[in-house]
Amino acid sequence: MLIEMPSHADIGLLPGALAAIARTVDAGLDHILQPPGDARDQLYAAMRHAAIGGGKRLRPLLVKTTADLFNVPEDHSRRAGLAIECLHVHSLIHDDLPCMDDDDTRRGKPTVHRAFDEATAVLAGDALHALAFELLAQPATHPRSDVRANLVMELARCAGAAGMAGGQMLDLLPSHDTGNLEGITRLQEWKTGALIEWSVDAGALLGEASNVERLALRGYARRLGLAFQIADDLLDVEGSEAVVGKRLKKDQAQGKSNFVSVLGIRQAKEMARRLVDEAVDALAPIAAPTELLIELAVFAIERDR
Amino acid sequence: MLIEMPSHADIGLLPGALAAIARTVDAGLDHILQPPGDARDQLYAAMRHAAIGGGKRLRPLLVKTTADLFNVPEDHSRRAGLAIECLHVHSLIHDDLPCMDDDDTRRGKPTVHRAFDEATAVLAGDALHALAFELLAQPATHPRSDVRANLVMELARCAGAAGMAGGQMLDLLPSHDTGNLEGITRLQEWKTGALIEWSVDAGALLGEASNVERLALRGYARRLGLAFQIADDLLDVEGSEAVVGKRLKKDQAQGKSNFVSVLGIRQAKEMARRLVDEAVDALAPIAAPTELLIELAVFAIERDR
Repeated sequence: MLIEMPSHADIGLLPGALAAIARTVDAGLDHILQPPGDARDQLYAAMRHAAIGGGKRLRPLLVKTTADLFNVPEDHSRRAGLAIECLHVHSLIHDDLPCMDDDDTRRGKPTVHRAFDEATAVLAGDALHALAFELLAQPATHPRSDVRANLVMELARCAGAAGMAGGQMLDLLPSHDTGNLEGITRLQEWKTGALIEWSVDAGALLGEASNVERLALRGYARRLGLAFQIADDLLDVEGSEAVVGKRLKKDQAQGKSNFVSVLGIRQAKEMARRLVDEAVDALAPIAAPTELLIELAVFAIERDR
Repeated sequence: MLIEMPSHADIGLLPGALAAIARTVDAGLDHILQPPGDARDQLYAAMRHAAIGGGKRLRPLLVKTTADLFNVPEDHSRRAGLAIECLHVHSLIHDDLPCMDDDDTRRGKPTVHRAFDEATAVLAGDALHALAFELLAQPATHPRSDVRANLVMELARCAGAAGMAGGQMLDLLPSHDTGNLEGITRLQEWKTGALIEWSVDAGALLGEASNVERLALRGYARRLGLAFQIADDLLDVEGSEAVVGKRLKKDQAQGKSNFVSVLGIRQAKEMARRLVDEAVDALAPIAAPTELLIELAVFAIERDR
């Protein structure tokens, strides 16, 4: 266990919820990604290799758990969850390319460019990117088209040059901008925070939450995203490659700053614990039971993969 | 001149329309792609390098020309035109990567991975992909959210695994599927036809066209897309690299089939002429003046770049 959170020790609902969302995502993507039976099949095989099986499915679970607060129909939160997972896997495939992080293993399997080739990996990432927006925009995701357009607009903003892609650019460039807590926090908010915040916000948008509720959930999500990244940086130093399912000790080898290099292990763990407490506090204005969101925040930093 | 179309010899409106759309697209993207003034600037610089200056801007002009038939406000068709150009440039950047077509020149400039590096090219393509959907989903593109959601859904479908990305996959794999007219036609419809059809359909969707009008315009667009690709294949054999602004004689060097290798030059030209005549005929149900769409169809095969 990476970090212990004795004040929130009960992990009751989460194991079942994680297992259920993994089944739901795998079944949903298996259904959507049926190969057409022609020369495009290799592309579908690469998308399936990357997207089906493995992964914590944290983002789809955040969408569903938040949507459940507002009694959103399962089918709507499931589709939005598949969309964010497609966008996330798109970013993993491209991030693993030789010209980016050059990784051989992801989710305990060979990366797409290793299992297939680089061109297929570029196209599989692109196709999953498009699929995310296709899923969100389809009427089955929500009866109100303004909700669907809003989900698309927000996700595109989070994924684009000002968000995730911008954060990945910053991550690639040797820069003094990320050598301190403020810089590394900003990098994280762009690179990984934005999609985690979108996942929680999507549940609120699907549920037509009030502004007060939406703001409270965003406060939760921002702190969860930061805590999650600190845990990732700690896993990079303290984790087991066999358990995590990808190459570790990368940041140090590549001379990259992260929360651990900036704060040290002890302070990084303290900051993660404080963020989880703050994330839990941020949920106060939500009337519906938030146990699972609280367990998810604890899981974000206690996980070993 | 690649092919002469004596029956539609008047090119009156097109030169002015092409010059105007180039100015509109350049100004619009310049405004949207203002660098934020931090380490993400390199990403914005790469997106600007690829997207601003150069290119025929055929797709934005198709959106505008079709939208004008239905008196759509300029600002709406302009935004949809910027979106499709962003998506198109995304595909060019990724297509030019060393692991794909490995091209050094595009639109008379170094390709993005040559002017910057491969990682920046992957991210610039991804960011333009996301920007396309962000632009379409924003309320400024159309007052009706169902129209915006529909534009997103259709574009994502055209760009994804069943459309453009699938076509690019097929194009990369040596396959008997593309060695005949039927196969090469299907490849073209996925790889380049889908986005050209979307451009025309977007004008119809923005203009809330009737089903009869939409169907007629789709018939026009499908034939235009095919004629355009045949002209591209002819340019690959007969064109001037200095004028076209990219490497030519690629298909033969890479052993790829195209319309010219399958039909021969004379038959390919005949087919292109026939398709332009059919495209013009398909416009019959449209009440508004269609001169510019007719000129665009002629231009698709008479152009020298």
